Amino acid sequence: MNQFSKDYLVVAQNASGRNMNVPLYRFKGRESGPKVYIQSSIHGAEVQGNVVIYHLIQLLKHTAIRGEIILVPNCNPVGTNIKAGEYTLGRFDPVNGTNWNRGYYYDESLVQAFAQGVKEGDSLDEVKSRFRDEVKQRLDEKLSQTWGLGLAHRLNLKLQQLAFDADYVIDIHNGPVSTRHIYVPEYAKASATLFNIPHVIFIPNQFAGALDEATFCPWWTLQNLLSEKFQRDIQFNVEAFTLEMGSQEVISFEDGKFDAVSVMSYLNNKGALIDADYQPADMRRVSVKLANYKILYTQQGGIVEYLVAPGEEVKKGQPLARVLNVDELENARATYEIAAPCDLITILHFPSASVLSGTQLYKCFTEYERLT
Amino acid sequence: MNQFSKDYLVVAQNASGRNMNVPLYRFKGRESGPKVYIQSSIHGAEVQGNVVIYHLIQLLKHTAIRGEIILVPNCNPVGTNIKAGEYTLGRFDPVNGTNWNRGYYYDESLVQAFAQGVKEGDSLDEVKSRFRDEVKQRLDEKLSQTWGLGLAHRLNLKLQQLAFDADYVIDIHNGPVSTRHIYVPEYAKASATLFNIPHVIFIPNQFAGALDEATFCPWWTLQNLLSEKFQRDIQFNVEAFTLEMGSQEVISFEDGKFDAVSVMSYLNNKGALIDADYQPADMRRVSVKLANYKILYTQQGGIVEYLVAPGEEVKKGQPLARVLNVDELENARATYEIAAPCDLITILHFPSASVLSGTQLYKCFTEYERLT
Amino acid sequence: MNQFSKDYLVVAQNASGRNMNVPLYRFKGRESGPKVYIQSSIHGAEVQGNVVIYHLIQLLKHTAIRGEIILVPNCNPVGTNIKAGEYTLGRFDPVNGTNWNRGYYYDESLVQAFAQGVKEGDSLDEVKSRFRDEVKQRLDEKLSQTWGLGLAHRLNLKLQQLAFDADYVIDIHNGPVSTRHIYVPEYAKASATLFNIPHVIFIPNQFAGALDEATFCPWWTLQNLLSEKFQRDIQFNVEAFTLEMGSQEVISFEDGKFDAVSVMSYLNNKGALIDADYQPADMRRVSVKLANYKILYTQQGGIVEYLVAPGEEVKKGQPLARVLNVDELENARATYEIAAPCDLITILHFPSASVLSGTQLYKCFTEYERLT
Amino acid sequence: MNQFSKDYLVVAQNASGRNMNVPLYRFKGRESGPKVYIQSSIHGAEVQGNVVIYHLIQLLKHTAIRGEIILVPNCNPVGTNIKAGEYTLGRFDPVNGTNWNRGYYYDESLVQAFAQGVKEGDSLDEVKSRFRDEVKQRLDEKLSQTWGLGLAHRLNLKLQQLAFDADYVIDIHNGPVSTRHIYVPEYAKASATLFNIPHVIFIPNQFAGALDEATFCPWWTLQNLLSEKFQRDIQFNVEAFTLEMGSQEVISFEDGKFDAVSVMSYLNNKGALIDADYQPADMRRVSVKLANYKILYTQQGGIVEYLVAPGEEVKKGQPLARVLNVDELENARATYEIAAPCDLITILHFPSASVLSGTQLYKCFTEYERLT
Repeated sequence: MNQFSKDYLVVAQNASGRNMNVPLYRFKGRESGPKVYIQSSIHGAEVQGNVVIYHLIQLLKHTAIRGEIILVPNCNPVGTNIKAGEYTLGRFDPVNGTNWNRGYYYDESLVQAFAQGVKEGDSLDEVKSRFRDEVKQRLDEKLSQTWGLGLAHRLNLKLQQLAFDADYVIDIHNGPVSTRHIYVPEYAKASATLFNIPHVIFIPNQFAGALDEATFCPWWTLQNLLSEKFQRDIQFNVEAFTLEMGSQEVISFEDGKFDAVSVMSYLNNKGALIDADYQPADMRRVSVKLANYKILYTQQGGIVEYLVAPGEEVKKGQPLARVLNVDELENARATYEIAAPCDLITILHFPSASVLSGTQLYKCFTEYERLT
Repeated sequence: MNQFSKDYLVVAQNASGRNMNVPLYRFKGRESGPKVYIQSSIHGAEVQGNVVIYHLIQLLKHTAIRGEIILVPNCNPVGTNIKAGEYTLGRFDPVNGTNWNRGYYYDESLVQAFAQGVKEGDSLDEVKSRFRDEVKQRLDEKLSQTWGLGLAHRLNLKLQQLAFDADYVIDIHNGPVSTRHIYVPEYAKASATLFNIPHVIFIPNQFAGALDEATFCPWWTLQNLLSEKFQRDIQFNVEAFTLEMGSQEVISFEDGKFDAVSVMSYLNNKGALIDADYQPADMRRVSVKLANYKILYTQQGGIVEYLVAPGEEVKKGQPLARVLNVDELENARATYEIAAPCDLITILHFPSASVLSGTQLYKCFTEYERLT
Repeated sequence: MNQFSKDYLVVAQNASGRNMNVPLYRFKGRESGPKVYIQSSIHGAEVQGNVVIYHLIQLLKHTAIRGEIILVPNCNPVGTNIKAGEYTLGRFDPVNGTNWNRGYYYDESLVQAFAQGVKEGDSLDEVKSRFRDEVKQRLDEKLSQTWGLGLAHRLNLKLQQLAFDADYVIDIHNGPVSTRHIYVPEYAKASATLFNIPHVIFIPNQFAGALDEATFCPWWTLQNLLSEKFQRDIQFNVEAFTLEMGSQEVISFEDGKFDAVSVMSYLNNKGALIDADYQPADMRRVSVKLANYKILYTQQGGIVEYLVAPGEEVKKGQPLARVLNVDELENARATYEIAAPCDLITILHFPSASVLSGTQLYKCFTEYERLT
Repeated sequence: MNQFSKDYLVVAQNASGRNMNVPLYRFKGRESGPKVYIQSSIHGAEVQGNVVIYHLIQLLKHTAIRGEIILVPNCNPVGTNIKAGEYTLGRFDPVNGTNWNRGYYYDESLVQAFAQGVKEGDSLDEVKSRFRDEVKQRLDEKLSQTWGLGLAHRLNLKLQQLAFDADYVIDIHNGPVSTRHIYVPEYAKASATLFNIPHVIFIPNQFAGALDEATFCPWWTLQNLLSEKFQRDIQFNVEAFTLEMGSQEVISFEDGKFDAVSVMSYLNNKGALIDADYQPADMRRVSVKLANYKILYTQQGGIVEYLVAPGEEVKKGQPLARVLNVDELENARATYEIAAPCDLITILHFPSASVLSGTQLYKCFTEYERLT
């Protein structure tokens, strides 16, 4: 059986004066190899990732590894316990609305300054190590600044201190009512087929505050700058992904096992496992550019029946939803249908039948293509 | 096509100074007959009843009726629009936690005083009419009292002013994740099989604040008192039901049509429809006494997979839920199962996987029996 | 310096699988004497009581006591940490709206059965002890029942297990925007002037679920039954109070010291302190019967300026609030005043300017009198 | 008496299928002159601005004006009515956490493209008018796009359609517990002393989504580009301000009158009033650059007494807050003080005593100076 340690990371303190901490599992490899960082439930209602990490721990106990694998389940001790009615208000800080997954650190100007200091003869390993130190020093500075830091921000930076050491970062989320999908940075397209996830979104080198971006944007930018500077292709082989493991507010142990095997397949292909035979499934995958991953908002309020399940292909004009206008039940405006504006795949939909105008009804793949 | 009118009932005013009103449909019969009152969505997230009323309106347009049928969809203009995260915080007033279905009026002492005034020769119709006037006068007094009234309380009494005129009252709700079930006062057992609802709870003459109770408790108490007083069986034939039409936060137009037909079957059997052929379906129904309709609470917190769907029969000891303890993923306490304490039917379960200790995990029929 | 111990009482478990506990301080007397139980913040936003207990601990360290004094600050680990916006949603369970101070146990039939078993010769101390055992056994049974218990209910009963042992129970709360006031059971009127609290509400022997009632109702009922049974005046000298120490959402250390001294004065007069000279202040106090402690609800919605501070005397007709109707700013309906329906003292008012119709605008003493 | 019209702008629809609209008052001048746009309560709990607009309407009825003045009180019909507990959850959309004041439109690239099309001979008025048309066309396009728009976003753009026509835009807010302060774009420094507001923050040409920025950033950028292009100083004299009129959740009619007079003084100085004698008060004002307007976050959780009122000057090291650690009442960690990290003026503080770590305790002017 594999050795591992368990620690707790203090990330906040509640009004009762008690530390709020996050469990941290660390599997050490017998051989040197890549560092892997996996977390789940930064959004409190998105709990299936905890089941995935549970299964990963069981599998890793009996799988020899290279390098190091860090697992951080249930990584947001505030978000996972804020109830509002029967559901979990887990996507944002209830005090100020801050999305728990938007406060990671990235500063393009730091990368530019660092790139200038890299010299032709520097080995990639040296550069990688120095760059990590630089970024982690910035994180330290931010975490210790006199005026303090916001709750979500501090939580994010504490986790990023761990994640930025890793070569492979996996952040496990869920959609509202959702099919499984994955966000993959464009430069790591080849890795998209290493997971058993049917829907793939390729994202550009743009930072919006999430952990995957905060991981790959610096390396992506740095390799671009250095490739240009030295006129050759430079790759740091750091990859980061957001995995959306189905719907929030539900768990399934069986699905979680499937998901864990999917992650093992990726890790195996990246050399993190020794003598393991996890391989990606032979399955249909479709991909889309981020710009073609579109949100359909309601234009009116009402009560909605969702007519299309997540993951289905829909033709232009086909009805996606039927809306009841409870104020006009007696006349022709009582119901109306919302049709697909173009051919699309519904990836997720809103989890409540009651919607105001301006609600994210569906998120859809448009202009998608088969991924092979 | 049947005639009907539509009005709006002002039940509250919001902080913007705007009236909050409730739509009110009134179908008048060609012949005299019973009065029927049907409302939906007093709990804001319980929206399927609106679909049922939508279908009822379509059916009633083309069905001749006796008496009068009042339909009040979406009867809580506050609760239906309070969002907390993506879901609707519709069960209680967000200001003070008051359940929207607990502020109806019933005063046993009023019934006792009234019963004393009834004389041997009084016709049942006279008694019924005088009793209605008496109760409605109390409602009027309460609604106009100098010191005012709480929001939920006022809403309830405004609706009760309409409902207390009716012979048959139907209040349409939903459970969290739920099978269809119905609350029936014990004296109206015979009506349980007039609806197409498989699970039936028989409730005693006890008042806890809900509309069905506020309707049948006064009549039940009065007929008991008068039966005793005059030593013969006196029946007012007023009935009231809470119908739980599946799960909250979702609607289905197809199911709503089935539900509407079920209500029409009841109305037809009560003489409210003319030349209609709506009849109850030949289906399996099980019933339980309220005291045997039990809540299973969690004893610990964790992340739950619900292993049994609402409506399933379960043997004692069979697992109902598997719980993940996210703080102990590495050891034997990582998961545990919650078993059925006795033979039961799961009627509904909590709608979120994340539970604290003391959460209503399941509500269950125990000691149930086949209803024929 | 006085000896004391500190423990933690586990009252719940959160979704992360972590125990939620409550600190418990126990000061043991050098001599035998009364048992005292003091808790604060069962409603999460009502935090001044924690400051009072802080000061009590400092004072009790240096005051010799008789008997035992148990202090339970911050006794609701769930309610104190549920934020909804910047404020604390502490009055009710966010899942189901259950008021955290309404689930204590009282069963009149138990008292009646117990009273029947009491014999003429039994000493009061024996009776007291047996009654305590009986009630506490019921609490134990409820806490260990197969089907579990709701979160608020369990929390309440766990605290009641401690409180029911005590002779003097003090439950410290705050109002919304409030002056200091105290609820006193009618039979303990004499104790009202032992606290330095200017506004006193005398409450009858009625149970609505709160800790003070759950403490005094059983004893009150029992002494009534036994007094009647044995035709002499029987007193158990158990007293319980709800103290409302000003406004929620704010604390003041200075006021907390004043409040702590007020509690010490009560304890001293009840023989709980040795050689202490805490005495009640010579101050103006007014009292009211519970039935005359009235709630003024808004009849319309709007934006409110509260014109009268808590604690002020107001004549009938004098304006209490000026309301802005933001939907009619241009005409004569733009503002209106809400006048006092009778002579009164405003005790507390709603803490937000934005109100729907049916909001508890003010709670007022009417028909009050000077307490001497 | 001045003429004015009143309209309603539909900005959303609720789940009950009802339009949510915003009142809109339009005062037309006798002479041509500047356009003014004033709104309040985009954040639902910030209600004092409605009182200010109420008083402005009374004053404007009797003051002759030039140009046009549009007043939009209570401009967020969703935010003003979302209660969470007794308070108003008005700063962000309860569904997704979106700040109601961050979705206005600004696109620097549009300004750059427009600037290129401006020719030397074009009159400023022509340029202004064309630029307005261009931006408003973009707003129209966004509002009518096929896939729809988020609720807050649509609300913002609907209001911006009105505001972008104006020369002077005033957006009235409140802080949590706050002194009066104003955000002024650096280029309009001279206008800071036209209001009777003691604390002034000068902000640079940076867009973060708020209405004031969405108003001045385009004009500021455009005048910079054209000044450079044509090598002369070009000014469009469009100004926009965020006014923070004290604390949220309270109103004062008297203060509102003072505030209205302050706005009238600004309008008078800008030529919007005819024969009026409103002049700014002779008062002490201090100013700060945005970069020196700092947030002090808590590093620990606890219960806080705020020791310094908003608006006070504090020396480095002086205590700002005293924190009670309710979990350690018996020892030396029971309380601690948070000291000012440098000389500062406290502008606002958090409105609840209960804070988690990472809470915005105070916002402070540092490195401030006297404004003359």
